[in-house]
Amino acid sequence: MHMTPDEFRHAGYRMVDWVASYMERLDEFPVLSTVQPGEVRAKLPPSPPEDGEPFEAVLADLEEVVLPGITHWQSPNFFAFFPANASGPAILGELASAGLGVQGMLWATSPAATELETHMMDWLAEMTGLPERFRSTGSGGGVIQDSASSATLIAVVAARERATDGHSNRTGARAGLVAYTSTQGHSSVEKAVRIAGLGSDHLRLVPVDEGHAMRPDALEARIRADRERGDVPTIVVATVGTTSSTAIDPIGQIADVCRHHGVWLHVDAAYAGTAAVCPEMRWILDGVDQADSYCFNPHKWMLTNFDCDAFYVADRAHLAQTLSILPEYLRNQATESGAVIDYRDWQIPLGRRFRALKLWFVIRHYGVEGIRAHVRRHIALADRFAAHVEAHPDFELAAPHPFGLVCFRHVGGDDVNRQILERVNASGLAYLTHTVLDDRYTLRLAIGSPATTERHVDQAWELVSAPRR
Amino acid sequence: MHMTPDEFRHAGYRMVDWVASYMERLDEFPVLSTVQPGEVRAKLPPSPPEDGEPFEAVLADLEEVVLPGITHWQSPNFFAFFPANASGPAILGELASAGLGVQGMLWATSPAATELETHMMDWLAEMTGLPERFRSTGSGGGVIQDSASSATLIAVVAARERATDGHSNRTGARAGLVAYTSTQGHSSVEKAVRIAGLGSDHLRLVPVDEGHAMRPDALEARIRADRERGDVPTIVVATVGTTSSTAIDPIGQIADVCRHHGVWLHVDAAYAGTAAVCPEMRWILDGVDQADSYCFNPHKWMLTNFDCDAFYVADRAHLAQTLSILPEYLRNQATESGAVIDYRDWQIPLGRRFRALKLWFVIRHYGVEGIRAHVRRHIALADRFAAHVEAHPDFELAAPHPFGLVCFRHVGGDDVNRQILERVNASGLAYLTHTVLDDRYTLRLAIGSPATTERHVDQAWELVSAPRR
Repeated sequence: MHMTPDEFRHAGYRMVDWVASYMERLDEFPVLSTVQPGEVRAKLPPSPPEDGEPFEAVLADLEEVVLPGITHWQSPNFFAFFPANASGPAILGELASAGLGVQGMLWATSPAATELETHMMDWLAEMTGLPERFRSTGSGGGVIQDSASSATLIAVVAARERATDGHSNRTGARAGLVAYTSTQGHSSVEKAVRIAGLGSDHLRLVPVDEGHAMRPDALEARIRADRERGDVPTIVVATVGTTSSTAIDPIGQIADVCRHHGVWLHVDAAYAGTAAVCPEMRWILDGVDQADSYCFNPHKWMLTNFDCDAFYVADRAHLAQTLSILPEYLRNQATESGAVIDYRDWQIPLGRRFRALKLWFVIRHYGVEGIRAHVRRHIALADRFAAHVEAHPDFELAAPHPFGLVCFRHVGGDDVNRQILERVNASGLAYLTHTVLDDRYTLRLAIGSPATTERHVDQAWELVSAPRR
Repeated sequence: MHMTPDEFRHAGYRMVDWVASYMERLDEFPVLSTVQPGEVRAKLPPSPPEDGEPFEAVLADLEEVVLPGITHWQSPNFFAFFPANASGPAILGELASAGLGVQGMLWATSPAATELETHMMDWLAEMTGLPERFRSTGSGGGVIQDSASSATLIAVVAARERATDGHSNRTGARAGLVAYTSTQGHSSVEKAVRIAGLGSDHLRLVPVDEGHAMRPDALEARIRADRERGDVPTIVVATVGTTSSTAIDPIGQIADVCRHHGVWLHVDAAYAGTAAVCPEMRWILDGVDQADSYCFNPHKWMLTNFDCDAFYVADRAHLAQTLSILPEYLRNQATESGAVIDYRDWQIPLGRRFRALKLWFVIRHYGVEGIRAHVRRHIALADRFAAHVEAHPDFELAAPHPFGLVCFRHVGGDDVNRQILERVNASGLAYLTHTVLDDRYTLRLAIGSPATTERHVDQAWELVSAPRR
C-alpha cells in the first residue's frame, strides 16, 4: 500500500523526467491559461477513487487535465505581476525538504532546520548588505515567512505591542492605533491593519511625489495631526519597489520621522530587495539600518520557489515575547536552556516546513556571483524594453525603471491600453498585467523568468506595438 | 549558470535516490537528534560562496551536515507530538508543484490550482462525511491553509466581523469581544485572540469533564455571565481530539449553545479529523453540521506532507468579504465575472502554492480504502500499546484513546515519569513527548509514522517499562 523506497525511486524518476520535460516545453504553451471557469473540474471524477490507482495514471492526468489549466509563471514570456522565480536547485531543495518531512517549530524538533535557517538568514543579510542589528550576531535576526503579507502582519502586531507596552495582547487592541503607508503601499498593509484589530479607518495613505515615492514631509504632517488628536502613531510601512511601479520610498528620511515620534518602521522590499546583492544597487536600502523590521522575498527574484520571504527584526526578544505562548506539551530542555531559537515564536502558525534547504541549494548552486548575474541580466532586459518604448512616438514610459519592471502606456488613452493588454494576453505569446498610475491606465512588463532572453523581450514589444486593427 | 533540463534530470535522479535511501535507513537513526546547540552551524562556512558549487557537494553536506541535526519525524520510532505523515505520492506531488512554480492567488493566475483545490476539498468533505454547507455546491466551501493555527485565526477574524457587522475591520476591534475554548484547547486559540486584537483577557477557558472534554453547561454559564456584563460572546473553538489527550468536545451540545447566543462555532479537528474517513469513526464529528467553520490537517494523519490544513466555512461570501481587498494591479476579467473563486480572499497571505496537487496524488495513490486502512492500523497499534500499559501493575492509562494517541503514566509520580521520558528519548530508539493531565505529568505516545509496525510499538513499550536503574 505505501510506496516502497524502490517504488518511490521509480516513480520519482518519472516525476523528475516530467518536470524536466515541462522545462523544455515552457516556451510552447499559451502563457495565460485559456480554460474557461469550471473546465478543469469538469474533467475530474466527482468522487474520490475507492481503490488506489497507478502512478502513471496520475502523471497522465497531470499532463492532460492540469497542464491546460496552468498559467505558466516560469515561461520566458511571463511578464505579469512580479516574477516568482523557480530554479532547478530550488525545486530539488523543496524535494529534499518534503523527503525529510520534518517540523521545524522548535529547535528540538530538528535542530538543523532552525540552525540552517538562521545561517541562511545571516548569509542573505551579508549578501544584501543588511546591518548588524538584523543578524543573529546582533540584537535581531531573520526568519523565513511564507510571504511579505505575513511579515507585514507580524510587524503590525509587534508594533502594536510596543506602542501599548504589551497591553493589546492582553486587553485587546486599543482604539486609535494608527498605521501609515504610501498611497502606493501594498494591499497587504490594509489587510494586516484589519486583521490586527487596528481598523482600516486608522490606516493613513501618505501622498507620494512625482516618482510615486512616499513624501516624508507629508508623513510627518499626518503623524503630528494624529498625535494632536490623541491617536497613537504605531507603524509606518515603507516600500522599496512598490507593486505598481517599483517606486522607492526614501527610507532614511522616513526613519528620521519614525525615530522622532517613536513609531515602528517596517520596510517592505518584497520584490526589489534581491537587487541589493549587486553592490551598484545597494543604495536602494540606504537607511534600512534605522528600521525595526525588514523583508524581501527570495521567492520573487532570487530563484527560490514560493514560499520564501526573508523577514528581519532588530529586536528578536520583543518579537518572541509578542508571539510566544508555551503550553505544557511543547516544553523541552533545549527551549528552557535559552540557548536556542524556537522559530514558532517568530511567526503566526505553529508548524513550519524546512524551507532553508532550498535557499541553501540555490545560493550554493549559483554562488553570489551567479545571483548577481541573474539580477543584472533582468535589469538589462528591462532597459532594452524601455528603450523600445522610448523610441516609439506613440508610447511613453510611465515611471522610472530601476529594476526589472517597466511601466509604460500608449499615448492614445486608457481604452487603447486596455485593448492592447487584452490583445497581447489573448495571443498566448506573452502575459502582462496593468496598474493605474497618476489616474491613468498603465501597462506593466515585469521581467521575469530565468529563461527570458532578448528574443522574448523583443517579441513582447512587437506584440504590444503591433498596429491596431 | 541555470540548470539545463538535462542537468536538472540528472541532479533530480540523484536527489530522488537520496530520498529513497533516506526512507530505507529511517529505522537506523537516533529519532531525536543528538546535536548540541550550535553544532550544525559550526559546520557551515560563515559566508556564502562567491561562485557556484557542484550539486554533488550540496548532496554530500546534506548527508554530513544536515542529517545529524534532523529529528526524524518519519521514523517508525517517532511517537512525539502528533505525527506529520509524509508519503511517496505526497512528496512527488510537492515536487510537481515546485516544478510548475505557479502562484494560485487568483483563479486567473492558474485556474487548475484553484479548481483542483476546490475539487479536493469537496472530495475530502465526501470522504469524511462533512455536511453539504461546507461544500462548494452549498453555501460554503473548503480551502487549504498552512496550518490549523492560521485556520483558527481566520475563524476568529471572520467571527469578529460577524459579531460587529463588519465594523471591526474598519474602526478596529471593539473592546469586550469574547472567545471561548476549553482548558484543553490549543495554544493557537490564545495566539489568534491576541493577534486579532481581542486580547487574551477576553479568552475564557471553559472547564472540562473527567474525559477532558468541554462542559457545555459551563460554556453556557460563561456566555450568560459575559452577556450580562455587556461583553459580546464572539466565537467558541471546540476541539475534536485535543492536543494533550485527544479528548472530544461534544460539538452538538456546544452548537446548541452557540446557536442560542448567536456565537460563531469553529471546530478544530486538526489531528483527529482524518479518522472520519472510517465510517465507524464518523461519530466524532456529530454536530459539525451546525458549525460555522471546521478544519483538519491532512498533513498530520493523512499521508500528505506539511503544509496542508483543510479549512471549511459554511458561508463563503462572508469569509471573502472579511478578507478581500482588491487593488488595481490584481483586477482581472475572471474575478469581475463573479464566476470564479480567488483563494487569496480566503487566507491571510496573498501568494499561495499549488498544494492541492499533493492531496490529489495521495488520494489517488491510496484510494479512500487505503487511507482507511492506514488509520485503522494506527488505531490498532495504539490499542496494542494501551493493552501493554493496562497489563502492567506500575502503569496506568491517563485518558481514553480513541485514535492513535495513548496517554499514560507510571504510578510512581511525576519525577519517575520525567525520568522515563528522558531515558527513552536519550536512547535514540524512540521519541515520546509529555503533557500534564489532571495536574499530573503524563506521557504521550502518538502513533506515528506510516512505517510504524507492531515491532516498533512493542520496542517502545519495552523501553518505557524497562526496570529503572
